[in-house]
Amino acid sequence: MPHIQLPEDLPGIRGALAFRPETAKPMNDLVETLLHGPNSLTPGERELIATYVSSENDCYYCQAIHGAIAAASLGDDEAVVKRVKHDFESAEISEKLKALLFIAGQVQKGGKQVTTEAVARAREQGATDIEIHDTVLIAAAFCMFNRYVDGLATVQPRDEEMYRERGKRIARDGYVFISKEYLPAETAV
Amino acid sequence: MPHIQLPEDLPGIRGALAFRPETAKPMNDLVETLLHGPNSLTPGERELIATYVSSENDCYYCQAIHGAIAAASLGDDEAVVKRVKHDFESAEISEKLKALLFIAGQVQKGGKQVTTEAVARAREQGATDIEIHDTVLIAAAFCMFNRYVDGLATVQPRDEEMYRERGKRIARDGYVFISKEYLPAETAV
Repeated sequence: MPHIQLPEDLPGIRGALAFRPETAKPMNDLVETLLHGPNSLTPGERELIATYVSSENDCYYCQAIHGAIAAASLGDDEAVVKRVKHDFESAEISEKLKALLFIAGQVQKGGKQVTTEAVARAREQGATDIEIHDTVLIAAAFCMFNRYVDGLATVQPRDEEMYRERGKRIARDGYVFISKEYLPAETAV
Repeated sequence: MPHIQLPEDLPGIRGALAFRPETAKPMNDLVETLLHGPNSLTPGERELIATYVSSENDCYYCQAIHGAIAAASLGDDEAVVKRVKHDFESAEISEKLKALLFIAGQVQKGGKQVTTEAVARAREQGATDIEIHDTVLIAAAFCMFNRYVDGLATVQPRDEEMYRERGKRIARDGYVFISKEYLPAETAV
């Protein structure tokens, strides 16, 4: 049971966002820009970073939904999502993405954990300053989202098909568009 | 030296925000709503929560600037800020704020660390659902901001007077207004 009275029909972060539309808008805008906006990293790559950090933070809802969005963005490749969560160094992804996931894992442990060596490795694999910046911020942002979702003890259904179906829609339409379903019109636009 | 090429004249989070105005806007909007917007918790109380979490995350820049904003918001009371960071249970603050700081400390460790007992204690001291929600989100958001600032290895001057002066101005004018100084006009408004 959630620690506060959240809308009962909205699982995970959706209930928390609907409870407080004033903070939902900037949070949705941030995730839209970071994960769905124009970027030299593909949406699939960015969703894998979000999924990996959520997995390290042991947040069921976030790793389920972002894992589903990642899979949908990568041609319904659920296997690569599982591999990235368990051992990304052996996953079938680019060397650049492995180096960025390594940085994301350091950020998850704490900002001061990020090493010059990890950043140099990413640069050697072709990562730009913006890609390194966005990796740090995606990882940092999911340290917020994960704590928000678990810190309020939101309801997190074990329903793979729900995440799969919703993941496809978010991969297609983005976060801000989807949020119109459960946020007041003036904050969702 | 920062891990990426940030504007050299802007310390702490300001350099990172100026580097990426697209993500700066929602981040500024979020902190403005959480810490400076209308709320039954005073700006000073909310800044103390932000300062405490930043101190627990060992982020120098964030605890210095938010400590300065907290002090300015509380009638230039720098002593209470120091006390809250070191042992908030013995600080001269309300029992409700102590209970909320306890929840914030749990969120800092991880979302799943928040206990029913901690929430019950806050409620017994008169905390509302929105105040509990905002405490969880402020704590979660500073787990993002702290990781962003330290994860990019931003420059963080040891200059108490700079933080004090800036703290007074942010306490008075808010985050979005101040950000016009260093962000492109279209994103700062």
